[in-house]
Order: sequence, then structure tokens, then C-alpha cells
Amino acid sequence: MSRLLRVFVPEDQSPADGIFTIGGEEARHLLKVLRVEVGRQVEVLNGKGLVWLAKVNEVSARSIVLKIEEIRETPQPAIAFEVAMALPKAGRMEETVRQLTELGVSRITPLLTERGEVGKLKDRIEGKLDKWNRIAVQATKQSGNPWLPTIREPVPFKHWCEGFSEDSCRLFGSLSPEACPISSLSQSAIKSVCIGIGPEGGFSENEEGHALAFGFVPVRLGPHVLRIETAAVCALAVAQEVFAV
Amino acid sequence: MSRLLRVFVPEDQSPADGIFTIGGEEARHLLKVLRVEVGRQVEVLNGKGLVWLAKVNEVSARSIVLKIEEIRETPQPAIAFEVAMALPKAGRMEETVRQLTELGVSRITPLLTERGEVGKLKDRIEGKLDKWNRIAVQATKQSGNPWLPTIREPVPFKHWCEGFSEDSCRLFGSLSPEACPISSLSQSAIKSVCIGIGPEGGFSENEEGHALAFGFVPVRLGPHVLRIETAAVCALAVAQEVFAV
Repeated sequence: MSRLLRVFVPEDQSPADGIFTIGGEEARHLLKVLRVEVGRQVEVLNGKGLVWLAKVNEVSARSIVLKIEEIRETPQPAIAFEVAMALPKAGRMEETVRQLTELGVSRITPLLTERGEVGKLKDRIEGKLDKWNRIAVQATKQSGNPWLPTIREPVPFKHWCEGFSEDSCRLFGSLSPEACPISSLSQSAIKSVCIGIGPEGGFSENEEGHALAFGFVPVRLGPHVLRIETAAVCALAVAQEVFAV
Repeated sequence: MSRLLRVFVPEDQSPADGIFTIGGEEARHLLKVLRVEVGRQVEVLNGKGLVWLAKVNEVSARSIVLKIEEIRETPQPAIAFEVAMALPKAGRMEETVRQLTELGVSRITPLLTERGEVGKLKDRIEGKLDKWNRIAVQATKQSGNPWLPTIREPVPFKHWCEGFSEDSCRLFGSLSPEACPISSLSQSAIKSVCIGIGPEGGFSENEEGHALAFGFVPVRLGPHVLRIETAAVCALAVAQEVFAV
């Protein structure tokens, strides 16, 4: 079984006369690591729902020319899922971005919370956003997800809570006894689902109160305390199963 | 908020006259890393549903004496969840064991599959099982899960499929068009749910046929291709939400 090759191109690029020329890092990877040859099938994703099925037509030292054979367009998911989360410890956010992208998240928002570690984050956020975006691109290629998620700059949880309208199902992870399973929620007509996941120790009482005032519902997954990254990925998977099936 | 301290003791240990003496690695960690002092509250877990709420009564160079104040017993989950999975790449199984334990899995079984990498696994399996067990213990302490999962030696997928009775809901992850969402399954009276997750590229046709013959149902999570570890953790979270809520 020869592995399906996928290439990512920025959304402002499109083929001319049925031909795509791939250069830069993507070409280098295809040529040096994957050693693609003329005739090999490749899928080109632009992260905005377009997928070009193509064949390698020419290879040179630094670029690859693809001939487009078919175009597929996948509409945006009917319900957009956003995960906003406090940052987990060292390196774990990268794995989480990858998993959320595989699952088909539309937007990832890092949260600044009262109990989270804020100082460190602000220092190096640009480098981190770059890295997370690269990981999301890799994950769309690996999983075949035609829609690249948006990864936003960190926002305070309270501020984030205020940005949604009535057609949005608003959830936050909570350890309080009022928290209910996601599957117990009524599935009225909604356009988006947004899920807030707090830091170790959870959101503060103050933060939870603010979220409730803005129409958020406290939810839980099972009886145990989950780490941030487990909660984020599993809450998305369960919410997709509940709302998008 | 001072963090709740949890200690794990093997199931053959129990307190005498309301006193628990902790030695070895657990005591070292509590004394040297967490610097516990007399009067500090500690929960003692035995991984078999028993939790002793205790207070530190004495500390010495190498041991800690706990005085038991209350005993809590959590019955075994009404439905046992097993995840059997092909092994993901370098190191990712450790993170997966941790996440499955947080969620409350009862049994984890590494699978030998036609498309998985078998040779490497067999060589070093004992060391790996030890490490996975240590990680599962850590995860029970972190998450407060009072039931330590069993981690089995690797078994061939086909052999694993044959080990279940009619009161078990039998699922395997599949990319075939017949695969259905877990939430679409009927929830008849069952005692256990077992979920098989294949390697990159999925189970072979031969393996899928065998699973079908033994009453397994092909299931999928969303439209994209998930990595082994994402599939394993999310399938468990969704199945728990569907069957155990």
C-alpha cells in the first residue's frame, strides 16, 4: 500500500492551466525525504476546503510540477467547533493542536486564566503560534482534513466568553456538581459549538460565574479529573459526536 | 489552593489499627519532592476501588506514617471499557496509557496486527509493560481514578476478537463506508464495551472480516483519518459518554 501523499499550499495559490508548481520546503520534503518521482499521485490541500488530485509531471532540483486531474471542494462544516483552552505543560500543546486538527476543529484559542501561567506565555507567543500553525498544517495533510483551523492569539477567558451569539452552543469544562454530560444537552439548531477548558485546578469561581452570565453551560467528561489536553481533545470528540452526527 | 496529595499502595497492603506506613519510592517522593509535613492531608489509593483519607502523623528520613480518618469504597464501573490498540510511534503509547487511565479504562491491550510493527515490540515488551504500569499508577493518582487499569501483554488482533461474550459491545475503528458513529448504536443491556483500534492504514480486510464474524461492529469518529492515539482516546471518551452516562 503506497502511502497517499498530500501537499499543502497557501490559500492564495491556485493552479494555472491545470498546472501547480511546488517549491520551497514542501518541494524539498517531497524530493529529499519522500523521493517522489514522475507519475506519483499527490493531493494538494489549501486548507480552505479545496483539494486538487494531481500527478507529478516534472521534478527538478528544487521544485515539482504537478498536473491537476480533478478538483474536489468540501464545504465548511455545518457546525463550527471552537476549543479555547488554558495551556498545558511543556510541549503538550503541540500534540493537542495536532489532535484537535485531526478531529476537525475550526478554531483554537489559547486562554489566559486566573489560575493558569500567563507570564511565560506572553513572552514567546509569536514563536509558539508559528509552530502550532505548522503542526496544524502537518495534521491536515496527515488526516486529510481539508479545512485548516484558525489558531488565535491568547485571550482572557472572561473576554472570550463574551464573543458568542444565541446560535452558539457555549460549554465550559467544570468540576462543579452542576456540570452535566455533553450528551444530555438539547440539540437545538446551532451554528457553532464553543468549548472552554480551564487550567489545572479549573476555572475560578469568578470566571465560572462570568461564563454562566454569558450563557455558558458547565459540562464534564466522566467522574475523574482530566488533564487539560485530555479534556480538550475528548470534549471536542464527544461534542462532535453529539452535535454533528 | 494547596494541591491534593495522593499516594498509591499495592492492593495487598492495608492499614493496621488505622495506621498506614508508607516507604520506598512513594515516601521518597512525598518527603524530598513534595516536602510533606505532619498534619498534611493525603489520599491513599489501592487501585481496587479503596481510598483512605488520611493525615500525616509522623515523618522520618525514609518513611511516613499516616493516620486514617475515613475510608471510601468506589464500586467497579457498571460497564467495563477495554481499549485494544496497535502501538503508536515512539513514546506516544505512554501518553495514551495516561489519558486512557484518566478517562477510566478498565483494560488496555496492545494489539499485534498485520500492518503494525511487531518485531520491535516483542523484544522489549517487559520493560514497556513496567513503564506503562508506572504511568497508569501516576495517572490514577493525578486524576483520582480509584480503579487501576489492567495492562495486558500484546495479543494478535484476531485472537483478541474471539474473547468476548454476547453481553459485550464489540467495536473496531474502521475507515470503510459501513463504519457508523458510536452514538448510532443501540444501547442494549451490556456489561462491557471493547474497542479495537488498528495501526496506521487500518486493520487488513482479512482482520476486519474476522472481527465481523465475531460480532464486532465497525465504527468511525468524524470524517478524517485519526492517528492511533487520537482514535484510541477519543473512541473511549465517546463510548463512555454513549454507554455509561
